[in-house]
Amino acid sequence: MTETSLSVPGGFQVAGVHCGIKQDPRKRDLTLVVCDRPAVAAGVYTQNLIHAAPVALDRGRTPSERIRVVVANSGNANACTGPRGMTDAEQMARWAAQACGAEPDQALVLSTGIIGAYLPMEKIAQGIRAAADQLGSDDQALVNAAKGLMTTDSTHKLAGRRVRLDSRRIQITGMAKGAGMIGPNMATMLAILMTDAALDKGAAQESLSRCVERTFNCISVEGHTSTNDSVLLLASGTAGGGPLAGEELSLFQRALGEVCEELARAIPSDGEGASHLITIEVAGCRDHASAKQIARTVANSPLVKTAVAGNDPNWGRIVSAVGYAGVPLDPRHLRLYLNGVLLYEDGQPAVFDERQVSQSMQKNRETSIRLELAEGDARGRFWTSDLTAEYIRINSDYRT
Amino acid sequence: MTETSLSVPGGFQVAGVHCGIKQDPRKRDLTLVVCDRPAVAAGVYTQNLIHAAPVALDRGRTPSERIRVVVANSGNANACTGPRGMTDAEQMARWAAQACGAEPDQALVLSTGIIGAYLPMEKIAQGIRAAADQLGSDDQALVNAAKGLMTTDSTHKLAGRRVRLDSRRIQITGMAKGAGMIGPNMATMLAILMTDAALDKGAAQESLSRCVERTFNCISVEGHTSTNDSVLLLASGTAGGGPLAGEELSLFQRALGEVCEELARAIPSDGEGASHLITIEVAGCRDHASAKQIARTVANSPLVKTAVAGNDPNWGRIVSAVGYAGVPLDPRHLRLYLNGVLLYEDGQPAVFDERQVSQSMQKNRETSIRLELAEGDARGRFWTSDLTAEYIRINSDYRT
Repeated sequence: MTETSLSVPGGFQVAGVHCGIKQDPRKRDLTLVVCDRPAVAAGVYTQNLIHAAPVALDRGRTPSERIRVVVANSGNANACTGPRGMTDAEQMARWAAQACGAEPDQALVLSTGIIGAYLPMEKIAQGIRAAADQLGSDDQALVNAAKGLMTTDSTHKLAGRRVRLDSRRIQITGMAKGAGMIGPNMATMLAILMTDAALDKGAAQESLSRCVERTFNCISVEGHTSTNDSVLLLASGTAGGGPLAGEELSLFQRALGEVCEELARAIPSDGEGASHLITIEVAGCRDHASAKQIARTVANSPLVKTAVAGNDPNWGRIVSAVGYAGVPLDPRHLRLYLNGVLLYEDGQPAVFDERQVSQSMQKNRETSIRLELAEGDARGRFWTSDLTAEYIRINSDYRT
Repeated sequence: MTETSLSVPGGFQVAGVHCGIKQDPRKRDLTLVVCDRPAVAAGVYTQNLIHAAPVALDRGRTPSERIRVVVANSGNANACTGPRGMTDAEQMARWAAQACGAEPDQALVLSTGIIGAYLPMEKIAQGIRAAADQLGSDDQALVNAAKGLMTTDSTHKLAGRRVRLDSRRIQITGMAKGAGMIGPNMATMLAILMTDAALDKGAAQESLSRCVERTFNCISVEGHTSTNDSVLLLASGTAGGGPLAGEELSLFQRALGEVCEELARAIPSDGEGASHLITIEVAGCRDHASAKQIARTVANSPLVKTAVAGNDPNWGRIVSAVGYAGVPLDPRHLRLYLNGVLLYEDGQPAVFDERQVSQSMQKNRETSIRLELAEGDARGRFWTSDLTAEYIRINSDYRT
């Protein structure tokens, strides 16, 4: 049995503080997640060849069985900063480890914000000390920690599930940030997932990779892959028992998938300037990769995104995006539904009430695009935001 | 010797008229290009699996040695119109052939405009008759023909070259349309190239395919591939002599490339809402395909396009787009110039005067992005428009 539940899992303490990377003193910009014992840790990172120093550092340290702390900062991505950026990331990890009595290599680092600027290391040092003093496991500490990740996000993002397994109860709680893949020179989506479940290293990594593939890797705002994207999973094991296996591991993975999906959807929903969250479902494909490729192509078409912004059931733009997705398919067997209404089948538009569909788009913040093919049984989903003049305003304003 | 020259090549007559597909009687919507003898014809078409009826028809008829007429209409794309759309395209070809005393299968058809609506066949018939009455080879006829292709274009697009070969002089003249890959539910880039040079069928097709690969296939406005894209080359041979070969064929191809490049650049330059034409050059690649793939990825990043709209020399967005292009490269040997100024090298930002670069972007309608890698000797170019709030306005306005 799985239920929605937001609490800090056993073994963890968290904090989020303002240390001055962001100018506004009301905005938190440094987050600590500390485990009171060596945690199993897994990570999934950006596929961008131009990746930031913290990504390089974490990649070398995960999967692991002995991570004690994650330190994250917002306002500065420590990306494109050369060897000095790497030294800074290592120093940041060292300070975080020190603050909770761990070894230097038991720390992971996340950064998000401006590309190409060096980290303000004095502020980071002070922020880590302040956060270590404020560690807690109550709701306020959790919200503060989630806020410490935010850049252009309009709201912090948290999700959690409580799962009753045969042998024990476990908690999975995650925090994430992201509003544009890049905002006004701000980068990245980040997520930290914590659980009290016992996991072995391999299962942790496999569970995370599999969940990310169908959640965080199925979202876009504008399709620009950041230099810093990272998703971390930490498992303390305080729920007791040996590492999850078999049916219990499957239940854990399903709940982890739910947490990841909830956090992932929250990102395009909070997309810069967005007025709609668009869900694209593709069914009847040869394999999941094909379904996802079609869904991503539709999601990333500026013409589809502007049509949704204008509440325009413009099926021609959606159907033509399917045609250039690079997936072999028989276009005669393509069917398109928008908000549940059939718009296109048999190579021609269906008869539908355009005004009614437009009104349903206008009334609902969520728009559903469903595509059905006749190539096989696989399906895939993708979430994106629409494209509004406000997005342009946010992203073409000259940096100040 | 090659010089810029706009005239209708020998053997051809053209016309452009208003026949009522567009509501505004001042806007031409039907174009005829007629050759007084069987012309060698080659075509390159959209790679979209969802392609329009005229694309299917022309694909089956090119390359050819006996084409007499191309009929094109704007305002209606005859795309996603099922079997009736195919019958309509064939009928349109038949009428055009009839109007110039040719066999039904000696005609090619181009359509651009609204997707999913059936062609108004009575208007088409009347338009073909009217255009046949107005055929001419003077400048005004050429401009009228180019205008008959326009949809959301703000201006008609023509380019031409006169080439002195050893044995003869030849003329190459082309017309094109395109402003968005799709405007407000309008589709497509189209181009018709005419020459009086003698070409054999194979050389015509190969010359056209090669030129398109480096010109029309290297432009984007928003990266949404249309259902109707078509480029046609017609060669009348009235310049005399046998089919071009050897050095003369190379000179012809170079001039054809210049005409195609000039027309291709004019499309993103006239991109919907565009305030900058962006040229992306990528050098130092393993092969041309890699260079083009990187250039296209940078060109299609909405974050790069909005930064240019805002006159923001935001190198982080450009460099990070290179990193997710899917081309293996060593990011440490990446150098970036914007409008001639070095912004990034050795994995870090260069020292440059940001305000000065921004001012140069503001002053010039053209923005040059140059990327240098150290993987090989191949290079590639891509042209795109920037992304402005005006583009969003044009494309999210509900269709009326």
